[in-house]
Amino acid sequence: MKTLRPRTFLAAMCACVLAFTATITRAADSLPSWNEGKAKQSIITFVEKVTKPGSLDIVPVPERIAVFDNDGTLWSEQPMYFQAFFVFDRIRQLAPQHPEWSTQEPFASVLRGDMKGALAGGEHALLEMVMATHAGTTTEEFGQVVKDWLATARHPVTKRPYTEMVYQPMLELLAYLRANGFKTYIVSGGGIEFMRPWAEQVYGIPPEQVIGSSIKTTFELRDGKPVLVRLPEVNFIDDKAGKPVGINQHIGRRPVAAFGNSDGDLQMLQWTTAGSGARFALLVHHTDAAREWAYDRRSSIGKLDQALDAADAKGWTVVDMKNDWKTIYPD
Amino acid sequence: MKTLRPRTFLAAMCACVLAFTATITRAADSLPSWNEGKAKQSIITFVEKVTKPGSLDIVPVPERIAVFDNDGTLWSEQPMYFQAFFVFDRIRQLAPQHPEWSTQEPFASVLRGDMKGALAGGEHALLEMVMATHAGTTTEEFGQVVKDWLATARHPVTKRPYTEMVYQPMLELLAYLRANGFKTYIVSGGGIEFMRPWAEQVYGIPPEQVIGSSIKTTFELRDGKPVLVRLPEVNFIDDKAGKPVGINQHIGRRPVAAFGNSDGDLQMLQWTTAGSGARFALLVHHTDAAREWAYDRRSSIGKLDQALDAADAKGWTVVDMKNDWKTIYPD
Repeated sequence: MKTLRPRTFLAAMCACVLAFTATITRAADSLPSWNEGKAKQSIITFVEKVTKPGSLDIVPVPERIAVFDNDGTLWSEQPMYFQAFFVFDRIRQLAPQHPEWSTQEPFASVLRGDMKGALAGGEHALLEMVMATHAGTTTEEFGQVVKDWLATARHPVTKRPYTEMVYQPMLELLAYLRANGFKTYIVSGGGIEFMRPWAEQVYGIPPEQVIGSSIKTTFELRDGKPVLVRLPEVNFIDDKAGKPVGINQHIGRRPVAAFGNSDGDLQMLQWTTAGSGARFALLVHHTDAAREWAYDRRSSIGKLDQALDAADAKGWTVVDMKNDWKTIYPD
Repeated sequence: MKTLRPRTFLAAMCACVLAFTATITRAADSLPSWNEGKAKQSIITFVEKVTKPGSLDIVPVPERIAVFDNDGTLWSEQPMYFQAFFVFDRIRQLAPQHPEWSTQEPFASVLRGDMKGALAGGEHALLEMVMATHAGTTTEEFGQVVKDWLATARHPVTKRPYTEMVYQPMLELLAYLRANGFKTYIVSGGGIEFMRPWAEQVYGIPPEQVIGSSIKTTFELRDGKPVLVRLPEVNFIDDKAGKPVGINQHIGRRPVAAFGNSDGDLQMLQWTTAGSGARFALLVHHTDAAREWAYDRRSSIGKLDQALDAADAKGWTVVDMKNDWKTIYPD
């Protein structure tokens, strides 16, 4: 009889323990905040299909890539993207260093508390505000600015910290996928460096699995110390057709599952589901005006129109937030 | 006495088995192709310092990021970068579809076998050749082109397949770091999509851990099927000061260990070692004209000059290939 070498034996033992743990994960209810129904069942059916030993649709662990939009998919996005609140707060914070802002639009409107006026200048004004608040620091300084803001900022409607406006059912879904060997990524139109400082703690998603929009950075030696400085120039917009581009750039393989909530996610879901083998696509439909917000085809934030038609045509899962979710936010 | 729940117990058992396996990994010689000496010892000392339970310099597993240059660090790069051989072979392969190339430089020189003439046009000519051979396909088609090329191409001097001109001691180092909880990345001036098709099989480095230079891509629906098309436009040059920028863009945290061989890696090593806590930087010095190539300060490929001075000043590890490595390539 062949004697197993100690490492081989330990590796086998370990694999066995892991497999047993995985079975238990499957058996228990990993999605307690999801009501029983089509949406929940479609998730479980897919995960079992691609992970169950012997399944014809099994996907090797390295290829178990799941991508999640952030705004409106993992956390709320009303009455405006949370990063926009950051921009406005940061303008107020920086105003003492910029006396010219008191008369210069769009900054003057922000400082008067007139958000409508601030946004009246359209995309150009928005870009100007983003650059004034996101560029000019080192990458490390900016991370700290974001963390400091999150520590005290509160949402104007719920009065909660923004990081407590993440969706409990989606946190469970992230954990359930990871317990089944998936690598979970964020693929968001939001700023990559705006999300990274908190995504690991809040979602369990490490910085290297966060993909987002970015501005250019440059390497400098400051007094002999290397720093990366953030420049007021767009590098990449990770939205709509940009999402598959960002996924390819960062991950280099096609995801097997994609989760979104708006037309900005349509191409990501198309790209994901066009691969061979089992694929999964899900849209969060905001239908709960009482516990969160209700909006879709006519919303200026998180517009869900073409993607909803595509879901209908392609058989993608659509979560009816009001009926499919027992709770919205964590307790 | 508190009863452990099954999952808690299994998790604890698993952690215990893993810890035991790690101990065995440490005890055995994980770097058999490295001669005993300062270079090998400095690697082991660093790894033990940042991983040993109780060490003051311990680095949490998620932060154990190690970055490796590719050309000249993980595989050879003489008499020219292997990707340049790919460019020339691909021009010959595509020539029948481009009758105009027979009289148009730099293509005409390539087709005549005059590499010097092909490169006489400098950076502009090189860029033209790269775009003609790297753009115009979908991302999936390009991956297949690279794989097909590697399957038959042989190095003009060694007559080996290019993927068998990787350094055996570095393969051992990659495996040793991973066995100690490190995530290993490639950070190369070479093309990101040129390396990804084979890096997982050859180095054990998955596509999402490959960072490199890139051209722009765009998302298109072709007959209703989504594809990413490669455009003849530079997106990012991952060399010199671009390396820390690429690391930040893809990983979002500072590595604790960096490995290179040329001045193109200097900023990556500076950026890595400027972080707080224990850091490690290593340069492969090509000193072995008999078994590989010997070159440094005056080489046009893989020039090692400023970085060698920096290594001396900062105490970075310098591998003397001739004396530190028992073997160069895998058997």
